[in-house]
Amino acid sequence: MYDIAIVGDGVAGLSAAVNGRARNKRVIIIGRGIEQSAIYKAEKVNNYIGMYGVSGKEMLESFFKHAEDMGAEFKQGRVQQIFNMGDSFALNVENDIIEARAVIIATGKSKAKSFEGEDRLVGKGVSYCATCDGMLYKNMPVVVIGEIKEAEEDARFLAEICSKVYYVSKYGAVDIKNVEVISGKVEEIVGADTVSGVKINGEVINCSCVFIIKESIPLTTLISELELENGHIKINRNCETNIERVFACGDVTGGFYQVAKAVGEGLVAGLNASKAK
Amino acid sequence: MYDIAIVGDGVAGLSAAVNGRARNKRVIIIGRGIEQSAIYKAEKVNNYIGMYGVSGKEMLESFFKHAEDMGAEFKQGRVQQIFNMGDSFALNVENDIIEARAVIIATGKSKAKSFEGEDRLVGKGVSYCATCDGMLYKNMPVVVIGEIKEAEEDARFLAEICSKVYYVSKYGAVDIKNVEVISGKVEEIVGADTVSGVKINGEVINCSCVFIIKESIPLTTLISELELENGHIKINRNCETNIERVFACGDVTGGFYQVAKAVGEGLVAGLNASKAK
Repeated sequence: MYDIAIVGDGVAGLSAAVNGRARNKRVIIIGRGIEQSAIYKAEKVNNYIGMYGVSGKEMLESFFKHAEDMGAEFKQGRVQQIFNMGDSFALNVENDIIEARAVIIATGKSKAKSFEGEDRLVGKGVSYCATCDGMLYKNMPVVVIGEIKEAEEDARFLAEICSKVYYVSKYGAVDIKNVEVISGKVEEIVGADTVSGVKINGEVINCSCVFIIKESIPLTTLISELELENGHIKINRNCETNIERVFACGDVTGGFYQVAKAVGEGLVAGLNASKAK
Repeated sequence: MYDIAIVGDGVAGLSAAVNGRARNKRVIIIGRGIEQSAIYKAEKVNNYIGMYGVSGKEMLESFFKHAEDMGAEFKQGRVQQIFNMGDSFALNVENDIIEARAVIIATGKSKAKSFEGEDRLVGKGVSYCATCDGMLYKNMPVVVIGEIKEAEEDARFLAEICSKVYYVSKYGAVDIKNVEVISGKVEEIVGADTVSGVKINGEVINCSCVFIIKESIPLTTLISELELENGHIKINRNCETNIERVFACGDVTGGFYQVAKAVGEGLVAGLNASKAK
């Protein structure tokens, strides 16, 4: 059981970790690595005071090292869902379960927009994890919408158990054994009570489940009842969300999309999460 | 005319300056120097990410250098009053006037508590600047309450023009020519419509004016109509105060009293002040 689980290993999450460790809390950071950070490719960052004219990569490397030196633990992976257990939270990280007393969401600027019908059908044929839910659709037809290359792994696994696997690639050409790759624009997840198909380029592909594999889960499905405001997590000046012991910091809370703002909010979230009873 | 005048040269003010300069604004920082900063004497600061285990002094030195390298201008001195001119602000810095389109208040954790009667009698015999107001009390008796050594300069000047000068030192023994040094606890500034005396140790010293020379002016008298909350400047998440084009950041807005929080708010205040029309 961790004191604090931090979802996202960008600037805000790392600053939150440093401050949780400064309060001697057991802290784990779950993320997809340094290259996913919004500033990784920045040539120069000039407005984070104390570090003039370093590259985004150099800055991130020093941030990771700082968090490591302070004793934060790291786990590579995507958090697929966060369950509120009352006294604690269970985080599903690609089927590993992490438990923590408090959660800090620092997933960055949300690029994930839901498809039409997606939010309504989550858990009713919309899944974000083949390893978790694949067996439920044994011998049935499924669609995989792959926004990142890792989705091919899910498709490969599903091809072994499902009657038919369609794959929609959002990032480029793909060739997967026993999988039918289709191209086009996903327009809607179709279904009354459960998923019956996916509408692509005006045509419905019938399926029992659609696996949507994206870089980050939409905030609305990451944890239930989280309050948003203009697509960002709504927080107060204490970085508290509407859910007790769930905090948020950095780009996910809205602009400015800047290192110093993320570091500052990371501190506030990290110290407040450390106080969470 | 500056685009942005920053009151206070601590961590938050310096971060605000860096970010105003990042937007190519003409920025001036007014303060009393590096040694006044709350973290100057900190042995180690471990929770400002990217700078692990440096001393407060080293950190501040790198912050000053960063702001200088980015082209911020500096002025040593205390801001005694800020006048709202409608389209701009005039800042009285020990009788030099600085004009700016926007103001950022970053004066740190407020140590200045008003004396009984002080707020009520500002401008009616309570003054914070002998150079500014001394001549109004020519040939009259005055009291100087000196909370910092610089106040002796004020007392010396007043001794040349006033009929009698009393000096209350709040920091240690003093000897000033033609000035009567009295010791004791200031209990009240006395007077109906204007100052008539200062009550010290239960006894009233009659005077026409009391000069209160402290490190920082109480926020309530620094700029009129500024809204406070529990003794701190009330801001929203944009670091806006209740006065248009007046922003605040850092310890003056309340806890956490931490570098990262001050740096983050400095960015928000600096960038928003840069947008001020």
